[in-house]
Amino acid sequence: MLRKLSLHPDRLFSPNENIRAIARRLFALVRDLPIISPHGHTDPAWFASNEPFANPAALFVEPDHYVYRMLCSQGIAPEQLGIRDIRGRRNEVDPREVWRLFAANFHLFRGTPSQIWLNWVFAEVFGLDIRLGRETADMYYDTIDAALRTDAFRPRALFERYNIEVIATTESPLDPLDHHRKIRDSGWKGRVITTYRPDPVVDPEFEGFRENITAFGALTGEDTQSWTGYLSAHRKSRAFFAAMGATATDHGHPTAGTANLSAAESEAVFHRVVSAPAGAGDAELFRAQMLTEMAKMSLDDGMVMQIHPGSLRNHNRQIFERFGRDKGADIPMRTDYVHSLKPLLDVVGTAPGLSIILFTLDESACSRELAPLAGHYPCLKLGPPWWFHDSPEGMRRFRQMTTETAGFYNTVGFNDDTRAFLSIPARHDVARRMDCNWLAELVADHRIEEDEAAELAVDLTYNLAKKAYRL
Amino acid sequence: MLRKLSLHPDRLFSPNENIRAIARRLFALVRDLPIISPHGHTDPAWFASNEPFANPAALFVEPDHYVYRMLCSQGIAPEQLGIRDIRGRRNEVDPREVWRLFAANFHLFRGTPSQIWLNWVFAEVFGLDIRLGRETADMYYDTIDAALRTDAFRPRALFERYNIEVIATTESPLDPLDHHRKIRDSGWKGRVITTYRPDPVVDPEFEGFRENITAFGALTGEDTQSWTGYLSAHRKSRAFFAAMGATATDHGHPTAGTANLSAAESEAVFHRVVSAPAGAGDAELFRAQMLTEMAKMSLDDGMVMQIHPGSLRNHNRQIFERFGRDKGADIPMRTDYVHSLKPLLDVVGTAPGLSIILFTLDESACSRELAPLAGHYPCLKLGPPWWFHDSPEGMRRFRQMTTETAGFYNTVGFNDDTRAFLSIPARHDVARRMDCNWLAELVADHRIEEDEAAELAVDLTYNLAKKAYRL
Amino acid sequence: MLRKLSLHPDRLFSPNENIRAIARRLFALVRDLPIISPHGHTDPAWFASNEPFANPAALFVEPDHYVYRMLCSQGIAPEQLGIRDIRGRRNEVDPREVWRLFAANFHLFRGTPSQIWLNWVFAEVFGLDIRLGRETADMYYDTIDAALRTDAFRPRALFERYNIEVIATTESPLDPLDHHRKIRDSGWKGRVITTYRPDPVVDPEFEGFRENITAFGALTGEDTQSWTGYLSAHRKSRAFFAAMGATATDHGHPTAGTANLSAAESEAVFHRVVSAPAGAGDAELFRAQMLTEMAKMSLDDGMVMQIHPGSLRNHNRQIFERFGRDKGADIPMRTDYVHSLKPLLDVVGTAPGLSIILFTLDESACSRELAPLAGHYPCLKLGPPWWFHDSPEGMRRFRQMTTETAGFYNTVGFNDDTRAFLSIPARHDVARRMDCNWLAELVADHRIEEDEAAELAVDLTYNLAKKAYRL
Repeated sequence: MLRKLSLHPDRLFSPNENIRAIARRLFALVRDLPIISPHGHTDPAWFASNEPFANPAALFVEPDHYVYRMLCSQGIAPEQLGIRDIRGRRNEVDPREVWRLFAANFHLFRGTPSQIWLNWVFAEVFGLDIRLGRETADMYYDTIDAALRTDAFRPRALFERYNIEVIATTESPLDPLDHHRKIRDSGWKGRVITTYRPDPVVDPEFEGFRENITAFGALTGEDTQSWTGYLSAHRKSRAFFAAMGATATDHGHPTAGTANLSAAESEAVFHRVVSAPAGAGDAELFRAQMLTEMAKMSLDDGMVMQIHPGSLRNHNRQIFERFGRDKGADIPMRTDYVHSLKPLLDVVGTAPGLSIILFTLDESACSRELAPLAGHYPCLKLGPPWWFHDSPEGMRRFRQMTTETAGFYNTVGFNDDTRAFLSIPARHDVARRMDCNWLAELVADHRIEEDEAAELAVDLTYNLAKKAYRL
Repeated sequence: MLRKLSLHPDRLFSPNENIRAIARRLFALVRDLPIISPHGHTDPAWFASNEPFANPAALFVEPDHYVYRMLCSQGIAPEQLGIRDIRGRRNEVDPREVWRLFAANFHLFRGTPSQIWLNWVFAEVFGLDIRLGRETADMYYDTIDAALRTDAFRPRALFERYNIEVIATTESPLDPLDHHRKIRDSGWKGRVITTYRPDPVVDPEFEGFRENITAFGALTGEDTQSWTGYLSAHRKSRAFFAAMGATATDHGHPTAGTANLSAAESEAVFHRVVSAPAGAGDAELFRAQMLTEMAKMSLDDGMVMQIHPGSLRNHNRQIFERFGRDKGADIPMRTDYVHSLKPLLDVVGTAPGLSIILFTLDESACSRELAPLAGHYPCLKLGPPWWFHDSPEGMRRFRQMTTETAGFYNTVGFNDDTRAFLSIPARHDVARRMDCNWLAELVADHRIEEDEAAELAVDLTYNLAKKAYRL
Repeated sequence: MLRKLSLHPDRLFSPNENIRAIARRLFALVRDLPIISPHGHTDPAWFASNEPFANPAALFVEPDHYVYRMLCSQGIAPEQLGIRDIRGRRNEVDPREVWRLFAANFHLFRGTPSQIWLNWVFAEVFGLDIRLGRETADMYYDTIDAALRTDAFRPRALFERYNIEVIATTESPLDPLDHHRKIRDSGWKGRVITTYRPDPVVDPEFEGFRENITAFGALTGEDTQSWTGYLSAHRKSRAFFAAMGATATDHGHPTAGTANLSAAESEAVFHRVVSAPAGAGDAELFRAQMLTEMAKMSLDDGMVMQIHPGSLRNHNRQIFERFGRDKGADIPMRTDYVHSLKPLLDVVGTAPGLSIILFTLDESACSRELAPLAGHYPCLKLGPPWWFHDSPEGMRRFRQMTTETAGFYNTVGFNDDTRAFLSIPARHDVARRMDCNWLAELVADHRIEEDEAAELAVDLTYNLAKKAYRL
């Protein structure tokens, strides 16, 4: 039985008519605002080369860890999905077969944000009006595959169609930013900026850390075997990133740990971690000190700092050994902020001009630690619900747990944080709807007035992101 | 003043008319489905002997720790309720007086699931239409007592009236399963199966552990003083349980800790814990290794594994010393899963055919650890909200916190987990209503379609439990 | 543009008409009940001297850390707000300028309880009907300032207008309670009682601890350099507080840690902490033992014990060094209760007559630890949502997370816990509305009957507070 696919205009709004009517009015104010995407993982090569996307499986399944982690959880092996192994090899697997497997299991995504995002793309971008399933797999494949071969579906055309005002990608200091340079030199008007993500040269547990330090020296012309040279390399590299549009740095550490070591102590731990494989204690201490160093550099160069802690990366040993990192096997863990951030805050916590955006995968910290911290320290702001919490319920809980203590103005609007380029407007659509619905709830039980909600809706959608990321 | 008791047909459904209408339609699909009860603590002797239940107090107060913990919290001593002390003795207390005390304090249960379950039993099973209270205590006592003397209220008759397709009890490896054998031999059609719960021979801190190990050897004919003999005893015992219907094992450890020791290390810790009282470290290490051993045995014999961690047993020292274990004084504690389970998952995490069902008393782990784990590992599934969370709000939070990351198909339907036999349909009724209401919410704000919700309602009520427990 | 300020009669009630209608009926039963304020921080000097409040800034901004922490979070320095520094000095700052700064930033409080409380005071107490903002700052200042100079706005007049039946302040054992004595001697009928808050002589990390111990001896005539003399000083001091109306003690420790040391161990740690600056371990151990000592004294003198753990005080080093304690920089941290309280409960957990009220800033403990503990131990009760959680969403979560396990009768009604005297009725108004709304939800989905809810509404508003605090 073919089942109709349609996007209801009131989707995600409360079924209470009073709230829904307010939410509709608020959403009308923000629905068509441009997309500000200040944190994400799209590939700048797409916009540099503007080549068509390969095929439906390569576009929707292979790069989307939300999708294949769910398939994997029901016993489908990565090999069946054409996921490349750690040496970049992959099974000869027909993308149509991958797509069929995905389609036959699409019911697994019921109630998940993936289903919301994917259905939006199917309906809005590809004009499909029948739902995906076993019977419609080939029809979907053919429709999408044909569209992808047209110019209207090339990356730049989609970027424009999506009304993206600015998008930030994320690169390592070891990246020469050639794609970004190529985009700039191309004369294309799309604003694609980079973000400084120094984990490969800051985290002693990152694969190839010591080789990375050497390469970092070569790239920057600094002596990265010395502490001062290493810091200079960061300053130079940050300046280069800023020249390529970056307004922010990003730090994906296992914990939110920061340190406030003396120069001599810093130098000593630096020498230990660059001269031999680091123990867990030194690795954590070095990362902790480097967050403080990065904050001090931000005071100088004005880059906004983002901290994304709390993920135990590569939890699944078999998957990691066979397929490498970022394969849907990162699992959140309990995260402390109140003690962890104190050393950094002792140094720069009240320094004017500093801006640090905090993210969490541990929602129990939202009302307990994050909202109280952001509701006090001038340098701290709360990033939007991240990763597993980038979802209707996650967004609802985020506002419920942070608004009363941190207010709205210590939050920074939405991040899509994705490499699934096609879904970007769908994700912003969810965020705008959920924010409008939350504001409508506050209006409906008379906690705020509708004129206040109207201002807030625009701020949450557009102004706060631009301001917080200095765009 | 006598107050009317009635069960509203729309109870637990949202007062929003839109949601309520959908919930009603979904509930109509599942209301009359048979009960699958794959995890619980009813006494197989009831079904073996089919003797009548003794009296209202013995049926509703004495065995129900939800009930007497609340009474105790308001200063009523266990002795007043006829609770037996640690030597099995009890105050001479008239069950009618116990009942009157319970009735006079029934207002304490307002807003708790106990009130919902009890009122269901009073109204549906005993036909009472006036609420329980001080004035109606005797009327209740007489009505219930009279009913219990009739054949229609014997265990097997209630089992049939309750439309129970299968019920699992829980036994220790030291239990000869005579009641189960008697049920089988009786020719009665009711399906009552056992579950392998090896805590008394796996947990070095269990009362009488070393004596239990000896008894375990005697029962299985294995040398349980040797590591290999001990493992063989488990294998034999599991096979015996399977022959008596068991499809699952159950593990009630203080933590979710698992280990991946070498054979030599395992043997060494085994010898330490069987030869002398174990220190806390060895006790934890041995339990941890045994979870991994049990998982490996499950790979061989296909038994589904259940892990119920996170309860600090017997928190109240005075109560424990006077009345022994399981007296309503077990208190949940913070529970880590992400690090704890890794050693086991490193060994068997992607092995096809393994199924491990995780439970929690620490709801903060639901969105942070459990849903991400179950949404990735093929062997992991999420058990329903457990114990204190087996309640309308607990169920609501469970779906809100797990659905978006783990979906519905990494959950396993409902467990009533109770020794309060009469309340079993009431508990399933609550679960079915709350699931239908949650699905109705997703339909009402257009996250899923009603045809999807209809399939899910049946899956959550019936199919997932049968599949997950291999029934 | 001037925007109308009005308090909607249905504020904070669900927009669902069914729930709202029930909530209205319940609220009508409790709206006009007297205020019981058993825990708070108003200054008894106000009621003793009955002097007018100084000016709008001194009344609303300077003493309210909710207000200036939010302003501070957006980069406004404490100096700009006239906050006194650690030596009691302050910038010469015109209170009208402070007020203008506050008014121009009033939008920061959208969605926070501060906005609700402040708007209530503006509208109900000062009769303002235009919202506060940059344009109305002076009008507000003049209106409020003029009112404050009239007799109707003196502390005692407001106390009477507010229908306060009893209010408790909080004093240290070093306080001679002169203001309380003066109130008693004045013949005024207002009931203002004290609370015994011994942190300055119990917490070795409190500023001036060892000097405080000496002063404690001088004040009580006991040898507070000896353990037995120190305990006697507490007993005497508690008796003095009780004579001045106190029915409760209050303990603001960093953790909920308790200990059960022998007399010799207690004496030893006492001698260490009074004879030299205490290390963190000894400080924690001494505080822990003192909670148990206080509980034992409560068994003797019947004082109710309140434990407020889990705040990391003075998190912001720069603010602390310049402005001292209690400047909006206290940040909650993860708090364990299940292990922490066990030593104390092992001693007095089932002793008849003892009453301990637990508070939390770590909501993750509510359903996991606090509700199970209070739903079992006769001596434990749950205090209302505290501090950052004294808010609509905080109250909603508190009931959602505690009711099903602890019921309503192990809670103790509302505390306003504030030094913002003018907002006290606003805070009770929020609590009453949120409780009525929660009860209405339970009625609307048929979990309880409306007659039960009506009894509960009055109990939660009035009876439970009087009973729990023995007023």
